[in-house]
Amino acid sequence: MPAPQQSPAAAGRAEATRQRILDAAFAEFSTHGVAGARVDRVAKAAGCNKNLIYIYFTSKEGLFAETLKQRLKLVYEDHPLTPDDLPEYAGKTFDFAMANPDVIKLLAWTKLDPDAQQPGARAESIARKVGMLRDAQKAGALTDAWDPEFLITFVMALATAWVPAFPYGTEGLDHARIRDQIVRAVAAVVAG
Amino acid sequence: MPAPQQSPAAAGRAEATRQRILDAAFAEFSTHGVAGARVDRVAKAAGCNKNLIYIYFTSKEGLFAETLKQRLKLVYEDHPLTPDDLPEYAGKTFDFAMANPDVIKLLAWTKLDPDAQQPGARAESIARKVGMLRDAQKAGALTDAWDPEFLITFVMALATAWVPAFPYGTEGLDHARIRDQIVRAVAAVVAG
Repeated sequence: MPAPQQSPAAAGRAEATRQRILDAAFAEFSTHGVAGARVDRVAKAAGCNKNLIYIYFTSKEGLFAETLKQRLKLVYEDHPLTPDDLPEYAGKTFDFAMANPDVIKLLAWTKLDPDAQQPGARAESIARKVGMLRDAQKAGALTDAWDPEFLITFVMALATAWVPAFPYGTEGLDHARIRDQIVRAVAAVVAG
Repeated sequence: MPAPQQSPAAAGRAEATRQRILDAAFAEFSTHGVAGARVDRVAKAAGCNKNLIYIYFTSKEGLFAETLKQRLKLVYEDHPLTPDDLPEYAGKTFDFAMANPDVIKLLAWTKLDPDAQQPGARAESIARKVGMLRDAQKAGALTDAWDPEFLITFVMALATAWVPAFPYGTEGLDHARIRDQIVRAVAAVVAG
């Protein structure tokens, strides 16, 4: 017997449930990583049956990959790289990181947790950014004193070092003061 | 009845066992963090009874704190901050991080794992470094264009961003090439 066609209202409800699961998963994974996360807690927080999570996402690892992918997609859309103004891109990345520390935490877990996997989307995004920087270098809009791969890592590491997910941010500096110094440091490097 | 006095040979064996436990704990914690670590595995790898670990270190959390403290002490001893030559300090920090990625991983876990605690020794060490940079600024050996807290975070984040524990290092650059760019970037900032 074929499955009955889903009505638009039912499809909308299914999509809302799926998003509730992803939101609950985001909170769970950023706090506990993948190995420490519990699908039971995600189901409870999302107000759905645990089996539904496996139907939608196959496994805990699949749920993590989808959660990270969705969050990073939002970042990339809201926050495009500007190769001709890396200092301000670094400042905006800092603003984003301070306002969304749990997204940075999710990213940090991908490298520590043996159960976490990087989505292919992330590697593609980095490759695209490197390409954009290289094009800007060829066009003369960006110094070619640095490898584009170096510049991306430099900017991201410096701009996000201040969130609690990473071990080097010191306490006692105010945000505006850190932001100003990040922008000036990137400007000094890009000029040099 | 008072405990018999321990002979020098017995004290030496106890110290060797304690160090075997710490070495096994280092491998366990850098791979699994604190929540994911198993004291059973540490005991098996160290070839000792599990109860002995609790006698020496009280708890899994106590074992983690002591493991991190010992590793960081070695780093601080072998690798002193040189406020009048931050570019080369950054280069040496990079060399250390690439040769000892598991130490950086242990440090990274301290901020992600809810069960991990930063040892007080680390906060003291950072405060001491900030003081050294401030003194160098007062003595005119280091530019005062930057807060010392900013400089420490900038150098550490940039120099260690390339180990697998952190999410921003890209692949395909060789070590010497990254090192050269780190040293030059810090020089550009310190000069600027």
